Amino acid sequence: MGASRITLLTDFGTVDGYVGEMKGLLAERVPGVLLDDVSHSVRAGDIRGAMWALGRYWRRYPPGTVHLVVVDPGVGTGRMPLALEADGRFVVAPDNGVVTHVLTAADSRRCVEIRGVEPPGEPSATFHGRDVFAPAAAVLAGGRSLSDLGPPLEAPVELTDPEPVREEQRLRGEVVHVDRFGNLVTNLPGSWLSRGAVVEVRERRIPLVTTYGDAAPGELLALVGSSDRLEIAERDGSAAERLGSYRGDPVRVELEPQPG
Amino acid sequence: MGASRITLLTDFGTVDGYVGEMKGLLAERVPGVLLDDVSHSVRAGDIRGAMWALGRYWRRYPPGTVHLVVVDPGVGTGRMPLALEADGRFVVAPDNGVVTHVLTAADSRRCVEIRGVEPPGEPSATFHGRDVFAPAAAVLAGGRSLSDLGPPLEAPVELTDPEPVREEQRLRGEVVHVDRFGNLVTNLPGSWLSRGAVVEVRERRIPLVTTYGDAAPGELLALVGSSDRLEIAERDGSAAERLGSYRGDPVRVELEPQPG
Amino acid sequence: MGASRITLLTDFGTVDGYVGEMKGLLAERVPGVLLDDVSHSVRAGDIRGAMWALGRYWRRYPPGTVHLVVVDPGVGTGRMPLALEADGRFVVAPDNGVVTHVLTAADSRRCVEIRGVEPPGEPSATFHGRDVFAPAAAVLAGGRSLSDLGPPLEAPVELTDPEPVREEQRLRGEVVHVDRFGNLVTNLPGSWLSRGAVVEVRERRIPLVTTYGDAAPGELLALVGSSDRLEIAERDGSAAERLGSYRGDPVRVELEPQPG
Repeated sequence: MGASRITLLTDFGTVDGYVGEMKGLLAERVPGVLLDDVSHSVRAGDIRGAMWALGRYWRRYPPGTVHLVVVDPGVGTGRMPLALEADGRFVVAPDNGVVTHVLTAADSRRCVEIRGVEPPGEPSATFHGRDVFAPAAAVLAGGRSLSDLGPPLEAPVELTDPEPVREEQRLRGEVVHVDRFGNLVTNLPGSWLSRGAVVEVRERRIPLVTTYGDAAPGELLALVGSSDRLEIAERDGSAAERLGSYRGDPVRVELEPQPG
Repeated sequence: MGASRITLLTDFGTVDGYVGEMKGLLAERVPGVLLDDVSHSVRAGDIRGAMWALGRYWRRYPPGTVHLVVVDPGVGTGRMPLALEADGRFVVAPDNGVVTHVLTAADSRRCVEIRGVEPPGEPSATFHGRDVFAPAAAVLAGGRSLSDLGPPLEAPVELTDPEPVREEQRLRGEVVHVDRFGNLVTNLPGSWLSRGAVVEVRERRIPLVTTYGDAAPGELLALVGSSDRLEIAERDGSAAERLGSYRGDPVRVELEPQPG
Repeated sequence: MGASRITLLTDFGTVDGYVGEMKGLLAERVPGVLLDDVSHSVRAGDIRGAMWALGRYWRRYPPGTVHLVVVDPGVGTGRMPLALEADGRFVVAPDNGVVTHVLTAADSRRCVEIRGVEPPGEPSATFHGRDVFAPAAAVLAGGRSLSDLGPPLEAPVELTDPEPVREEQRLRGEVVHVDRFGNLVTNLPGSWLSRGAVVEVRERRIPLVTTYGDAAPGELLALVGSSDRLEIAERDGSAAERLGSYRGDPVRVELEPQPG
């Protein structure tokens, strides 16, 4: 049995030492634990942004990994802390919808409300990352089971993703994520698209291609991206800046009649 | 005995490869060492900011941990390099006051001036992180003792923190840290406060509450934060931006006469 | 034999979860692997910036380390993926010149084109970091050899560095890197300089000194920096901002006639 591994995703930034406190507690309680930063630069309180990122990486890690996620604008309100096991991986997070993509993608899932963890001192009302979530992650990384953390949580909060619409020769969806390269990721699945499609966003018509190399530098293009969704990009540039587009923007696709 | 662990706190940023050089040296000299980033985004030369962060995490880590801190605007001047052992943890840093909160909080402390370390090549006049501090951290993480690094340092530099003042029905302090959420952390200890207190900063009067949930979104509030000091926050926003406040701003508190 | 270690250098930022995906794949394929972030903040598509950073740290790490570098504006075009072994360290990267400083500095070097790696699912046209480079790094970190990845690559892309010029009493070079402190790193080797030299950049004449302490705070100075090249700095400030200087700016040096 190898070392335990915990990943961290927060909106804490790093300069204040908050993440350092969490890591210290984890290192103290789980000797030899491997700590992988995913990000501490999530926009403050951006639950959807964190949901998106978590949805990408949680199942790439091997079973047994503990994913610690603290994007928690509701700290100090009534929101619950939760822990879940999904396809053998663990996630510890506030119950605010940040785990939505894990819940929808997992084949098996089990959720508990975190109750009985030991904070490092007098627990604070403002820093549950240190006082609740990291201690819970340490329990799981130490090999104990989900039910040691608390009773089952039947209906964790799930955020609704906007549903894409499929008509005969038309698709309607929207931009659901803008990445650091200014690529616009939509909610339109790759399998709905076909050769010859034309994508419309912000009154621009953009051809569907296969890869970046199919467009000249500076040109806009649409393609099926690495999460198997339609994306709009600018070769060697930022489509988001070029189009003034952001999360929530409508996207339409005209399909070409297919032979056969 | 598990793997050694070294934490890193610098103002180097990451893109230039300076931190990579330090990590490489540590990995080479201490095989299997675990390297935990705390931050490389400290504002260039901000000794007080690094002092603040270090003060939060140093003792959360278990005994034996080596904390490497390089915020060193005085590199190439007469300032000393130091190593210290405090309550079983080690800190390697320039002697410029960055370890002040460790020195004041530790039950036991011992300090040496770093002299006899081996740089990775011809030592430079500008990059002691690589040529002095990382080699010293490697010595300690490799299990050797503080006195192997050099002679005792009797009076390491300590920065003075502004002293808060307690009068009969009044407290006077100041903002000592602004965190990434725009929370204003003051030097007023939580134990001085009592129900009904009213906090005054930048001509605004702000009620003391228990937790964020006691204020409506967008409202200013004051509470005892996770380091047991008075903090001023805006629910779901930035108090620093809202009030135009920063480190050094005076903060006054009116206490309500307590029964009995 | 200790744990394998992989370093990561990308322009992916961290918030989108792309780096998380890569790390998850590495953790899954190489149990217990140590993952050291160098940076994910390389400017999008800045091959020269990444080349510079990699050149600093690759050989500080011990033999056997795998350096994973994904700054890849050419993904989806014809550029090759490469892996190389240089002085016992491995580098996995796109063949776009980012490894230039490794190739020029290494005593021994061997390069292959990556062909036969196993992507984590259907390979994408846009995310070779996850689908090509991380799988290749996992192969090497798992102890297999370079030739398991593909056939020899005879002539990897090398970027040309601007050549500095040495005349009798004059040197001519340019700024090749601006670091996060605003220091201007030039291509002029330290060995060409001598006491009494005067450096000219942006019509300012700046004296050569030995260390930062030789200048007053706020003063410009020139010195031989930690990579043994001439650098221009401002004590406690940013020379780049002060001079409005950037990569590519010409730098001239007047040498003083030396006795002897």
